[in-house]
Amino acid sequence: MDPRDVRELLERVRSGDVTVESALEGLQELPFRDIGVAAVDHHRALRQGVPEIIFGQGKTPEQIIRIAEEILRTGQNVLVTRIEPEKAERITAGLPGFSYSSLARTGKVAHRPAPERLAGPVAVITAGTSDIPIAEEAVETLLAVGLQPDRVYDVGVAGLHRLLSRSEQLRRAAVVIVIAGMEGALPSVVGGLVAAPVIAVPTSVGYGAALGGFTALFSMLTSCASGVVVVNIDSGFGAAMAAHRMLLDRGQ
Amino acid sequence: MDPRDVRELLERVRSGDVTVESALEGLQELPFRDIGVAAVDHHRALRQGVPEIIFGQGKTPEQIIRIAEEILRTGQNVLVTRIEPEKAERITAGLPGFSYSSLARTGKVAHRPAPERLAGPVAVITAGTSDIPIAEEAVETLLAVGLQPDRVYDVGVAGLHRLLSRSEQLRRAAVVIVIAGMEGALPSVVGGLVAAPVIAVPTSVGYGAALGGFTALFSMLTSCASGVVVVNIDSGFGAAMAAHRMLLDRGQ
Amino acid sequence: MDPRDVRELLERVRSGDVTVESALEGLQELPFRDIGVAAVDHHRALRQGVPEIIFGQGKTPEQIIRIAEEILRTGQNVLVTRIEPEKAERITAGLPGFSYSSLARTGKVAHRPAPERLAGPVAVITAGTSDIPIAEEAVETLLAVGLQPDRVYDVGVAGLHRLLSRSEQLRRAAVVIVIAGMEGALPSVVGGLVAAPVIAVPTSVGYGAALGGFTALFSMLTSCASGVVVVNIDSGFGAAMAAHRMLLDRGQ
Amino acid sequence: MDPRDVRELLERVRSGDVTVESALEGLQELPFRDIGVAAVDHHRALRQGVPEIIFGQGKTPEQIIRIAEEILRTGQNVLVTRIEPEKAERITAGLPGFSYSSLARTGKVAHRPAPERLAGPVAVITAGTSDIPIAEEAVETLLAVGLQPDRVYDVGVAGLHRLLSRSEQLRRAAVVIVIAGMEGALPSVVGGLVAAPVIAVPTSVGYGAALGGFTALFSMLTSCASGVVVVNIDSGFGAAMAAHRMLLDRGQ
Amino acid sequence: MDPRDVRELLERVRSGDVTVESALEGLQELPFRDIGVAAVDHHRALRQGVPEIIFGQGKTPEQIIRIAEEILRTGQNVLVTRIEPEKAERITAGLPGFSYSSLARTGKVAHRPAPERLAGPVAVITAGTSDIPIAEEAVETLLAVGLQPDRVYDVGVAGLHRLLSRSEQLRRAAVVIVIAGMEGALPSVVGGLVAAPVIAVPTSVGYGAALGGFTALFSMLTSCASGVVVVNIDSGFGAAMAAHRMLLDRGQ
Amino acid sequence: MDPRDVRELLERVRSGDVTVESALEGLQELPFRDIGVAAVDHHRALRQGVPEIIFGQGKTPEQIIRIAEEILRTGQNVLVTRIEPEKAERITAGLPGFSYSSLARTGKVAHRPAPERLAGPVAVITAGTSDIPIAEEAVETLLAVGLQPDRVYDVGVAGLHRLLSRSEQLRRAAVVIVIAGMEGALPSVVGGLVAAPVIAVPTSVGYGAALGGFTALFSMLTSCASGVVVVNIDSGFGAAMAAHRMLLDRGQ
Amino acid sequence: MDPRDVRELLERVRSGDVTVESALEGLQELPFRDIGVAAVDHHRALRQGVPEIIFGQGKTPEQIIRIAEEILRTGQNVLVTRIEPEKAERITAGLPGFSYSSLARTGKVAHRPAPERLAGPVAVITAGTSDIPIAEEAVETLLAVGLQPDRVYDVGVAGLHRLLSRSEQLRRAAVVIVIAGMEGALPSVVGGLVAAPVIAVPTSVGYGAALGGFTALFSMLTSCASGVVVVNIDSGFGAAMAAHRMLLDRGQ
Amino acid sequence: MDPRDVRELLERVRSGDVTVESALEGLQELPFRDIGVAAVDHHRALRQGVPEIIFGQGKTPEQIIRIAEEILRTGQNVLVTRIEPEKAERITAGLPGFSYSSLARTGKVAHRPAPERLAGPVAVITAGTSDIPIAEEAVETLLAVGLQPDRVYDVGVAGLHRLLSRSEQLRRAAVVIVIAGMEGALPSVVGGLVAAPVIAVPTSVGYGAALGGFTALFSMLTSCASGVVVVNIDSGFGAAMAAHRMLLDRGQ
Repeated sequence: MDPRDVRELLERVRSGDVTVESALEGLQELPFRDIGVAAVDHHRALRQGVPEIIFGQGKTPEQIIRIAEEILRTGQNVLVTRIEPEKAERITAGLPGFSYSSLARTGKVAHRPAPERLAGPVAVITAGTSDIPIAEEAVETLLAVGLQPDRVYDVGVAGLHRLLSRSEQLRRAAVVIVIAGMEGALPSVVGGLVAAPVIAVPTSVGYGAALGGFTALFSMLTSCASGVVVVNIDSGFGAAMAAHRMLLDRGQ
Repeated sequence: MDPRDVRELLERVRSGDVTVESALEGLQELPFRDIGVAAVDHHRALRQGVPEIIFGQGKTPEQIIRIAEEILRTGQNVLVTRIEPEKAERITAGLPGFSYSSLARTGKVAHRPAPERLAGPVAVITAGTSDIPIAEEAVETLLAVGLQPDRVYDVGVAGLHRLLSRSEQLRRAAVVIVIAGMEGALPSVVGGLVAAPVIAVPTSVGYGAALGGFTALFSMLTSCASGVVVVNIDSGFGAAMAAHRMLLDRGQ
Repeated sequence: MDPRDVRELLERVRSGDVTVESALEGLQELPFRDIGVAAVDHHRALRQGVPEIIFGQGKTPEQIIRIAEEILRTGQNVLVTRIEPEKAERITAGLPGFSYSSLARTGKVAHRPAPERLAGPVAVITAGTSDIPIAEEAVETLLAVGLQPDRVYDVGVAGLHRLLSRSEQLRRAAVVIVIAGMEGALPSVVGGLVAAPVIAVPTSVGYGAALGGFTALFSMLTSCASGVVVVNIDSGFGAAMAAHRMLLDRGQ
Repeated sequence: MDPRDVRELLERVRSGDVTVESALEGLQELPFRDIGVAAVDHHRALRQGVPEIIFGQGKTPEQIIRIAEEILRTGQNVLVTRIEPEKAERITAGLPGFSYSSLARTGKVAHRPAPERLAGPVAVITAGTSDIPIAEEAVETLLAVGLQPDRVYDVGVAGLHRLLSRSEQLRRAAVVIVIAGMEGALPSVVGGLVAAPVIAVPTSVGYGAALGGFTALFSMLTSCASGVVVVNIDSGFGAAMAAHRMLLDRGQ
Repeated sequence: MDPRDVRELLERVRSGDVTVESALEGLQELPFRDIGVAAVDHHRALRQGVPEIIFGQGKTPEQIIRIAEEILRTGQNVLVTRIEPEKAERITAGLPGFSYSSLARTGKVAHRPAPERLAGPVAVITAGTSDIPIAEEAVETLLAVGLQPDRVYDVGVAGLHRLLSRSEQLRRAAVVIVIAGMEGALPSVVGGLVAAPVIAVPTSVGYGAALGGFTALFSMLTSCASGVVVVNIDSGFGAAMAAHRMLLDRGQ
Repeated sequence: MDPRDVRELLERVRSGDVTVESALEGLQELPFRDIGVAAVDHHRALRQGVPEIIFGQGKTPEQIIRIAEEILRTGQNVLVTRIEPEKAERITAGLPGFSYSSLARTGKVAHRPAPERLAGPVAVITAGTSDIPIAEEAVETLLAVGLQPDRVYDVGVAGLHRLLSRSEQLRRAAVVIVIAGMEGALPSVVGGLVAAPVIAVPTSVGYGAALGGFTALFSMLTSCASGVVVVNIDSGFGAAMAAHRMLLDRGQ
Repeated sequence: MDPRDVRELLERVRSGDVTVESALEGLQELPFRDIGVAAVDHHRALRQGVPEIIFGQGKTPEQIIRIAEEILRTGQNVLVTRIEPEKAERITAGLPGFSYSSLARTGKVAHRPAPERLAGPVAVITAGTSDIPIAEEAVETLLAVGLQPDRVYDVGVAGLHRLLSRSEQLRRAAVVIVIAGMEGALPSVVGGLVAAPVIAVPTSVGYGAALGGFTALFSMLTSCASGVVVVNIDSGFGAAMAAHRMLLDRGQ
Repeated sequence: MDPRDVRELLERVRSGDVTVESALEGLQELPFRDIGVAAVDHHRALRQGVPEIIFGQGKTPEQIIRIAEEILRTGQNVLVTRIEPEKAERITAGLPGFSYSSLARTGKVAHRPAPERLAGPVAVITAGTSDIPIAEEAVETLLAVGLQPDRVYDVGVAGLHRLLSRSEQLRRAAVVIVIAGMEGALPSVVGGLVAAPVIAVPTSVGYGAALGGFTALFSMLTSCASGVVVVNIDSGFGAAMAAHRMLLDRGQ
């Protein structure tokens, strides 16, 4: 309900078209609906082919199916993250059109194509092969919001030539997502090579002093490359959604 | 030096215009210069009125003056972060043109105006008044790279109406920097209100369970608003540089 | 045994009605019984329909049944917390009248109704759906001590309108229990909206920087809303018992 | 602005007393003011002689004086917490009527008496003498909101007789605030002795494994006495404000 | 080999009774044997009926049987700690005379009785019923070294009367072992009640802020009762061996 | 007041020698005095020349003098721990007979000699020279309670011969206090060399990974030598009081 | 490609032997290949019989077989670390020539012997028997790179004579790898006994305060023996590779 | 004293050249001296011009002077680490020949030149300028033990070209010491570029998530470059002594 609606309502109160009681009722919900405007704007954009996203961890297959069905009824696409293979099997059985990526541990039902966007590719870089599941979660999320992922996998800093040989790809990217576990050094090197936004994703890869991803997390937060930003451990989804925010006015 | 330059050099070697020795000399530096391309591109952009930035903490006034003089000789502006008042006094005495912001604890020498940029304003939001020094560090850095800060201070979530009454400002922003200590809840609320990129800056404000900023840091990393990104504790500078990356192709 | 009892005993010693030996015996236990008075008072209140509570975690079904049977023999109700479904099945088979809530993971045998109480409702609020099991543990405990829970679920701060649309319920509450994982921001917002006591319950919902509930815990302890109190991670039971203390003189 | 105001405004629009434009302007701020209702209610109560509270730590004497003057202009009392003696001296010099408690490190200007309240006394208990400054911060805050503190100091559990000899005082209390550093055992013992609400305040007293108050904090959160609630380390203020919430409908 | 032995050996070298070569051989091992004296003295004491102790965790049943057989061949008793029921079954099948305590998770083969000792009883106190397995590990170890355990279980500080009603037992003890999880408050209270050595054993009982036993550990290390000593989390064995050291000259 | 006293009081009530009122008064304090028995026994022992001990840290010189004067009035000795030199000077000026050890940072007023005790010496061992202040705190406390310290300083494990050359001293000790910072390895080696009780004291000596004493603390708690017990970081006082408990029935 | 190659290439361009296009192509890869030189040198050395190493943890048997087959095709040996028995069985079935060490949890296919090396033996020392799996991982890696391991197992510091009796072996070693869990004291003692490089490996052996290996890690980093270096928890492989670097110019 | 010495002593006892008493005296010290052999060998090497090293932190100038004088009397050189400027001034005044490096915070008295050594240079690399003091501590220690440092400063990974342009220096080094704070990424990159031993030194440079050096420490321990070893935070001295061990048989 924007100011024009309120004005119109007031005009109709003045003209007697609407009783005071009924106007009061309409205005009563105003505070929350008005605040809701932002959300609604946001949701409207999302509804244009962008899926609703369900965080699958800690939910039963039945719960996921039920939530997905509700969303699908509204005509939107659905993306589900963090679902293990056995859970995925049961969802597949119960939810028509559901397709699962075992690498990304995500699944989706896409009734219509993701929106066309003008933004350049989003480079998704990993330090090692063990970081790939997190990278694929980012990739699937990017695809779902209409962005174009560009994979650059297994280019950790201990073999610098692997990374440098891909520098063309890096420089082409509108946003760079850098995924690394263990010492998490890769975003610092990449941050020095590109001028685009760098979103660092620490992973829980490694043992002992890797602290389940916290060493990579802290490492990325103290990166000597300025302007690197960080998301939660193993959150490929979070990185993709951050890229989505950064490229929002470019094609969506 | 890009491939076309190398091709041209080789042509001139073949044609005898350039001797082998002199071509060798030119190529010798190639590996590093080529890698340097990104950096050079980046630096070139920066040289267009954007200051070089000196991290002042742990450096003596003499060291800061010496480094600043070197940069100024190349015609660039200089921004110095994290300098305490007493240190600033000594720099002011020794470095002509140096002006100091005691709130932001930053100083600068700006020989020429920052570059014109097309990007919208960058909202700089704080939860409390104690977060303002970090906010001002962000503001000074934004100004130095040619971006336009829009201050929204002291709008913590315990008094929600303060934040909501400023929602127009939030929605207008190209990027939103949210600065909060203690429980660090503000980015979650802001992330739900705007669709733009949200850069969260935890501060060391608070005591006991605030853990010197780590509670706010972890809080922001686990924000229930998707796509929020985070920088190091008290790093107003880092947040501004991240905004700079995000808005790089819009006016610079 | 209060001073009047001791005085009476002494009078009876003086008059010879009671021998020194038998008086000595009676007095011997005095220190502990006197201390026990508080406990006994407390227990007396509890016996008026309030169940004894068994912490089920780490106990075998056999142990739980045996303890429950002992309590039931004294005419009290029994509430058992933290019992997994498979354990609950075995208890159900062995303990007549036992009913189990799989959501709350609690079970009970209620021989008689909980006491009537005059206190207003206790709002039980959750940030997300994953926090509901902890909320239901609180609800079951509240019901067991005769308080009236008022559920407000899934109103996390990233979608502020969800919370604000329920503000009437919040303001009606005599005590508000706020349950949240991840960044634990909800109690700060609720604490700013209501004047009633706010009991914050951090949950272990979330991953990575959520630190298994410690980020929410520390966040709640440093809430910018003054007067918010906190209980242990995932302790819906603890929050309900705290509400019970706060409303003790209102109907029990 | 409550529903009656809106209804009245609408009536006046209908009758033509108020133009649509001017009504629109009044309604425009509605969302935030309406949300503000809770705060306003709360503030109204506070204005009845209850002081506004300034967190003094990290503020200059000049800032504190300026904020205090603004509050005093509205006729309210002012309480300032966490001010060191030297800072207090400068405030005393600049703020007429300011009186300072060096033990509590709080100061106040009380133009009118705190409100009369019906609630029983709030026991303020400390384990050792080093916890007294935190206790006095609680005491000063309780007095400021019109509650009656009842001091029970230096009754740590290693000399149980000290605590037990004061049990009469404990049982009389409407709320019990228990303040302890080191191992923080006192709330568990007190929680077993009284049925009233127990608010535990960990202090940073102790060294080594006391972890600057975190051992006491965690100890209190895992208390074997059920229904004990906890506030931040060294937060005597927080505990008093929690007591204020709990006793709000009893005399204010 | 003490100085008298060396002197005698040298005399025999001088007199020619022993060749230089053979004396050299004897002296060669001297450094280690001399150091070994302490160990040997110690071992000698232990061999007088005291079992060798095998830490069972992380060893296969086969390994445990093999090591036990070697020890038994030398005529000593054997105690095995930290063996789960299924592992115990396989050991029982393969090691004649092996008897297992499922509560203590220890097993033993005792060919001869433990030595007679003059020391008074060792009180083994627990805060809750969940601490009993650790207590029983201490009990079994005490019995194995010839000491007399005196169980005082489930006397946590939230119900002080339970502990105080057992104070006679506490005061009789030569050494007191106090076992508690969660907030670990019990040793502070016991340390104030008795003058004997108090050995505190933190247990991993509890959840959330109990930190897997570290809260109890730190709590016990900062006990306000002076002279309390602490062993590792869940180490009933360590506490019993400490008691053994303390009472060594009293009956062994 | 032990049972005989109560019986006698009752006899006197029966015979009329004591009125009921006056008996009631006497019994009124019974609960706490009876619990106090242990404490009183303990205090009685302490009064036999053993000083009361004041923890000096965080107390002003004036407070320390006042407390000391109160104790001295009862004829007891006084020991004050953790007082820095400047504070000690002011105490010396105000408290007649006060003598200060700058190494141990303790001071005392000893009106009469410490009690004679039969117990053997208590070895006080340090790994390095930086651990000596903590060792001297232990030494001063041992002397105050009538025990005989035997210093073995600077025998860290990196130069094993230093320790082994003192092994005679170690074996003679009734109790061994082992003080070490950094990696805290010394108690493990000493625990393997002696059969007496080993009390390990971690110190905050070291930097970086020494974690302010926590590495030594954890190291000592996980010592591979069985039966080693541990006190808080830097607590020479705590170790001496533990030795006092262990040797209590030997000469006091 | 070193400067001589570039010069030669340029000469051939000048002489027309090589076209500009083909020279360009060769130079194009220069930056990365030049950087690759180190790696290539390193790889060349490794190819002389030294195996490529696959980190087996987190990889499926199929992935390991596929990677191994690729390496074997190039004529190199393969070593796989961190493979559990059941995984090893499936690899053995699918990869001809694969032999598995269940103790070290490593497997290998060695087509040709490891290179001859001149370096002295590498002592591999453990504190306890539980550390042996990590030691064997080091041993297998040492053998794979052509170094000669010398096992010294179960010589923890609580029984010093065990270590001292093996001192001859220690002193003979070119490098000493010391492996210990729990308090991690062994490297300090060994570092004082030998002058050779000491590589400390903390293990996750122990419970409670052992912190899953972090106590041993921090202990080793703060060793009082100077010049001790440390690798990650449980990284027998890392220690062996460090020894390989240290002895690289001695026989390879 | 090695076996030949003992044999000779025994021969002389047999022949009567040496009395039993005097032989006994000589043998008495054997255990410790024999263990001391390693130390003595080591010390002998050190005495050949290598200084004894005093850890200056926590020692008074007077103590340092006294220890230094004792060492100098034996003809050895002295190196003192971790001395602040003001302390150094007082040592300079009291200790003839003492020269101080304010950058390295070390001082020395070198009566004679360090020994000639054959080992190649030791590269000392830093990520930033703030790491230089730690680097210089390493340099001074290397010089003191006769090794040749080769400085490569300020080559952090965010500007990769700086490091790569110095790769010739890196490859020439016999050992590489890599010093970095913040995210500690440099050793991973260097470890991939060189085959020599890499000793990583984390520094406490950085703030917030840098955790006072622990992020760099953990980062280095989990380096993706194999065979990198680590020393304590800020321990330039430790790294140099490790290099000394690695190069011991090459020129000393």
